[in-house]
Amino acid sequence: VVLSATRRGLPKPKMSENGVVPRAKVLTIDTMNPTVKNVEYAVRGPIVARAVELEKELSEGMKKPFAEVIKANIGDAHAMGQQPITFFRQVLALCSYPELLNDSTFPEDAKSRARRILQSCGGNSMGSYSASQGIDSVRQDVARYIERRDGGVPCDPDDIYLTTGASDGIMTMLKLLVCGEGVTRTGVMISIPQYPLYSAALAELGAVQINYYLNEEKCWSLDISELQRALDEARHHCNPRALCIINPGNPTGQVQSRECIEDVIRFAAKEGLFLMADEVYQDNVYADGCQFHSFKKVLFEMGPEYSDTVELASFHSTSKCYMGECGFRGGYMEIINMDDEVKAQLTKLVSVRLCPPVPGQALMDLVVNPPQPGEPSYDNFIKERTATLSALAEKAKLTEQILNTVHGISCNPVQGAMYSFPRIIIPEKADKGQQPDMFYCMKMLEETGICLVPGSGFGQKDGTYHFRMTILPPRDKLQILLNKVKEFHQKFTKHYS
Amino acid sequence: VVLSATRRGLPKPKMSENGVVPRAKVLTIDTMNPTVKNVEYAVRGPIVARAVELEKELSEGMKKPFAEVIKANIGDAHAMGQQPITFFRQVLALCSYPELLNDSTFPEDAKSRARRILQSCGGNSMGSYSASQGIDSVRQDVARYIERRDGGVPCDPDDIYLTTGASDGIMTMLKLLVCGEGVTRTGVMISIPQYPLYSAALAELGAVQINYYLNEEKCWSLDISELQRALDEARHHCNPRALCIINPGNPTGQVQSRECIEDVIRFAAKEGLFLMADEVYQDNVYADGCQFHSFKKVLFEMGPEYSDTVELASFHSTSKCYMGECGFRGGYMEIINMDDEVKAQLTKLVSVRLCPPVPGQALMDLVVNPPQPGEPSYDNFIKERTATLSALAEKAKLTEQILNTVHGISCNPVQGAMYSFPRIIIPEKADKGQQPDMFYCMKMLEETGICLVPGSGFGQKDGTYHFRMTILPPRDKLQILLNKVKEFHQKFTKHYS
Repeated sequence: VVLSATRRGLPKPKMSENGVVPRAKVLTIDTMNPTVKNVEYAVRGPIVARAVELEKELSEGMKKPFAEVIKANIGDAHAMGQQPITFFRQVLALCSYPELLNDSTFPEDAKSRARRILQSCGGNSMGSYSASQGIDSVRQDVARYIERRDGGVPCDPDDIYLTTGASDGIMTMLKLLVCGEGVTRTGVMISIPQYPLYSAALAELGAVQINYYLNEEKCWSLDISELQRALDEARHHCNPRALCIINPGNPTGQVQSRECIEDVIRFAAKEGLFLMADEVYQDNVYADGCQFHSFKKVLFEMGPEYSDTVELASFHSTSKCYMGECGFRGGYMEIINMDDEVKAQLTKLVSVRLCPPVPGQALMDLVVNPPQPGEPSYDNFIKERTATLSALAEKAKLTEQILNTVHGISCNPVQGAMYSFPRIIIPEKADKGQQPDMFYCMKMLEETGICLVPGSGFGQKDGTYHFRMTILPPRDKLQILLNKVKEFHQKFTKHYS
Repeated sequence: VVLSATRRGLPKPKMSENGVVPRAKVLTIDTMNPTVKNVEYAVRGPIVARAVELEKELSEGMKKPFAEVIKANIGDAHAMGQQPITFFRQVLALCSYPELLNDSTFPEDAKSRARRILQSCGGNSMGSYSASQGIDSVRQDVARYIERRDGGVPCDPDDIYLTTGASDGIMTMLKLLVCGEGVTRTGVMISIPQYPLYSAALAELGAVQINYYLNEEKCWSLDISELQRALDEARHHCNPRALCIINPGNPTGQVQSRECIEDVIRFAAKEGLFLMADEVYQDNVYADGCQFHSFKKVLFEMGPEYSDTVELASFHSTSKCYMGECGFRGGYMEIINMDDEVKAQLTKLVSVRLCPPVPGQALMDLVVNPPQPGEPSYDNFIKERTATLSALAEKAKLTEQILNTVHGISCNPVQGAMYSFPRIIIPEKADKGQQPDMFYCMKMLEETGICLVPGSGFGQKDGTYHFRMTILPPRDKLQILLNKVKEFHQKFTKHYS
């Protein structure tokens, strides 16, 4: 042991009192993977850890200035009281326990959907491994969904990979792209503010993060000139190879215009960048005049000069939209124009993990193939979906309205997704050594029980401060929460001015 | 584009006939992540790809010398006709569609289990994210299970991390361990033969694989002198930091003796190695006189000199044993003596992926907390579990017996796990440029429809050949399959002699 510690350049272990040399740990903070140390993920960072502690303290009867902790830090719809879609859960129950196929209380369309899923499973059981790329019939349903969504642009099921949530697909694609050292090391362009999965994945992979800033003054829009600036600067120190876009935006809630998407595709083509389109909020569009345009559709409508050449991966998930089924970890990615040899490598790589969770695959199948007009579950499905989406639209507006009444808070319209990302003015006296927005959010948590994520966890322009807040709590609760934020902000500003 | 291609040292793209410069792909086999290219995973390699093709050809009516493809390549119990445990699936159905809690046909113990799981989920829904380390109550149940299994050795729920199958946990632990460059690069000791997740993970992480050979002559036992040899040689070119053990063995089916485990622990302590114990087959022990001993239990019974210092991660899964629920991707790892700062880093790292699939967590909970005596589902649970495990024990014996009747095949007893890994003699004339055992298995697939994995996918001593075959097909089918293997081997040997 002494020998091996010396080999690694560690200090010699000391004798303990009884003369026994205590063994040094094999794995310490100094000898662990350095890229893992660089990973940060604010959505579940120190604020959330403290929120969990506070919940425990409350449950143990400790007195606090609030009765409950409200976690508005993460897009976790069911945890905020959103109800699952009945049809989806009926089919999942049928697939889990096929005896229920004999139960007359289940609707026929749920049963036929369950039978079809089970027939695609080895031994008719969700307990079997699926193909690593995902169940064939599910990938076919995904392809047909994409064709419908994109007005008939063709989609090949062979281009679909089912994933363990969207995060898994994004991580896998980034993994393929990373190579080189020093100035040839792969660089990946991500928006600032960004969803911190991207920065975390790049840190873990040791890739170079290239920041392009969204324009807060223009409702968090994406300017091509800013892409160009970021790219040109990055070319001096790394090899930029990919451009990541989140649309609708997380944490910023903007919905990209068709023109903007065209410009981005032209830019990627001109500069030789692999496009990654994170489109998990594709059903979450609320603002008048806004519409979701998939990168795939726009790409194909730009003609073969682009549609035959630009490499694109687009990601979707069961976790967001109107279903909010985060716990099932369902998702897919569509891969366009990928080199055949690389695609074979991708298939090999995902095979090591065997397969994505089959219940998540089943759920993804239901999302892309929901009840159709004339089927017994159709009306109720539409009713439930509409109720959830209209409630979200209403809460998006409410959030913007109330936050903008507060002096020192300014909030862009929440056009889509599930978050507001308002700018907050923090008095200079509140600059206490730690990040001022972290200090602000921690104070808010301790005083009000509201758990938000500081803007620094997503990235923001130097000298500006923000927080991310989900719009998911039920309307009444959200209103109370927003008023508490208002009150807290006023008190905080007064105290530190 | 020309510029960026040149920057990467690629050949200049050519003009096409219409004068347009076709865009080069951003991502090619030459410009992708080189570590991914080094990954190999035989369990789902070219043989399996061909098996899937053959199934398709059969279904399209093409004539073959066999009526069906039998996939004995992967431990996929339900796909081979094993039935799920009724109680588990009832609880999963109840958790998926809680309306069923009002259904009087479900037993009360299934309902109370479902209620307990749902109460631990945000918003009482499996659709919520769980804590990244896993649901608290499930981790508590896992800890109590480990304590019962290990005769009262204490287990702290804080040391339990729920995972997406065991593969996910193993990959995560290896990721923490990798650092250094050149002769200081992390080396990890794995058995040969091994389960190829290990070699694939090490290739992807760019760690050094250190092979130690199991002793086929002594029923695939592990000799400490061989560990020492492998370690001493490896120290010249890398920094060995971890030792992986699979017990019961995959693909080799041996069950380690208590003495052997003690020796391994002493060796790891002496040499400063982090122990990783893959114990996913802990209920799959068939041979008389064999018994499963967990590394955790043995470690703690060796006294504080070891139990206070040796770092150990042990892995379990819902995919094997008597339940065989692979598709749900459930699993856990227990971490012993890990440095606190490293543990905090581990928790941060897993938080980036948000959480393991919640249905898999629920299933893991049922595995560690099955029906108890006196509960309504107890008798049926025991009946189902016993039936599966005794059938496996019988098939383990049958496999060994029939294979050993074949001249040129010798098979160690299948003491545990789900595979036989017989040695096969391949005539020199069958050495056709590709790996002889790959050639043998591909021939067998084309002629008999039986899908096995060549020994080269797991590693074997130079000049020896093997295949891995699961013992999972139903008894009748297994007997037919074994007789076909026998017939094929005789024909093949005759043909190439």
